[in-house]
Amino acid sequence: MTMLTRNLVSASVPSIRVFSSAATRFLKTGDILKRARIFTSEDVLDYSKVSHDSNPLHFNSEAAQNAGFEDRVVHGMLVAALFPKIISSHFPGAIYVSQSLHFRSPVYIGEEIFGEVQAFNIRQQKNRYLAKFKTACFKDGCVVIDGEAMAVLPTLSVED
Amino acid sequence: MTMLTRNLVSASVPSIRVFSSAATRFLKTGDILKRARIFTSEDVLDYSKVSHDSNPLHFNSEAAQNAGFEDRVVHGMLVAALFPKIISSHFPGAIYVSQSLHFRSPVYIGEEIFGEVQAFNIRQQKNRYLAKFKTACFKDGCVVIDGEAMAVLPTLSVED
Repeated sequence: MTMLTRNLVSASVPSIRVFSSAATRFLKTGDILKRARIFTSEDVLDYSKVSHDSNPLHFNSEAAQNAGFEDRVVHGMLVAALFPKIISSHFPGAIYVSQSLHFRSPVYIGEEIFGEVQAFNIRQQKNRYLAKFKTACFKDGCVVIDGEAMAVLPTLSVED
Repeated sequence: MTMLTRNLVSASVPSIRVFSSAATRFLKTGDILKRARIFTSEDVLDYSKVSHDSNPLHFNSEAAQNAGFEDRVVHGMLVAALFPKIISSHFPGAIYVSQSLHFRSPVYIGEEIFGEVQAFNIRQQKNRYLAKFKTACFKDGCVVIDGEAMAVLPTLSVED
């Protein structure tokens, strides 16, 4: 995708047409990439099947309440999967190098969760880029998961 | 589960029967809990669906080879899910507090991966326990992912 902005003005053509497309955006320090998601009961079941993680906190409301939660909780690692999802959807081919995760608050089924990754360090490595991101998930403005991620990006051009 | 080891020897019964069950094991510093798993092509597809992560590195051999891999790779976060799976299967009701992850080497479909968590710090908090674990996944004896996890355990009694 290259920047294409043309203004054609000519008295010899019957109509004036302006061609424009979104400018290519390049990742720079401070940029924030976001994605919202609501996790369903089916998501919890599907994740449990593929991860083989059947902790009763995710399936049994009573067990979850006995542990101090309001209700059964979404797997933390499923919510945290928002981070590589955000990075790889904007940078297909990105290679995940590291991720730290602090699970601060429970995520319940049906809650809208906002995932964010913010680039805070970018450096070129040969023909690729090593980018560090602050990563956080929020609900109602409060942090539910935070940490940092590092990824190798094939390009700094951001796909939308 | 309580320790139950009975040796019944009596001349009045026709046969001698020995009842025994595994002794209750309590987690202590240094203990290692393990689980092996081979990730299939279906696992990668199922994980992609539930995580919404469709990075071409996981589906397109050519894209993966262009990025320097031998073939398409299993999602790192799916492999890392071994850690909470190991903890929660031995301690149902465990609450995940934190996890750090360094993705050292790629995991390919069909490879046998050995996940391990080793307790290195355990302290009581009221009627629960806060445990820190070194976490690692290996293939052919080499580390593919390592890091640390922290979890709140409802008991130190290890379920098998």
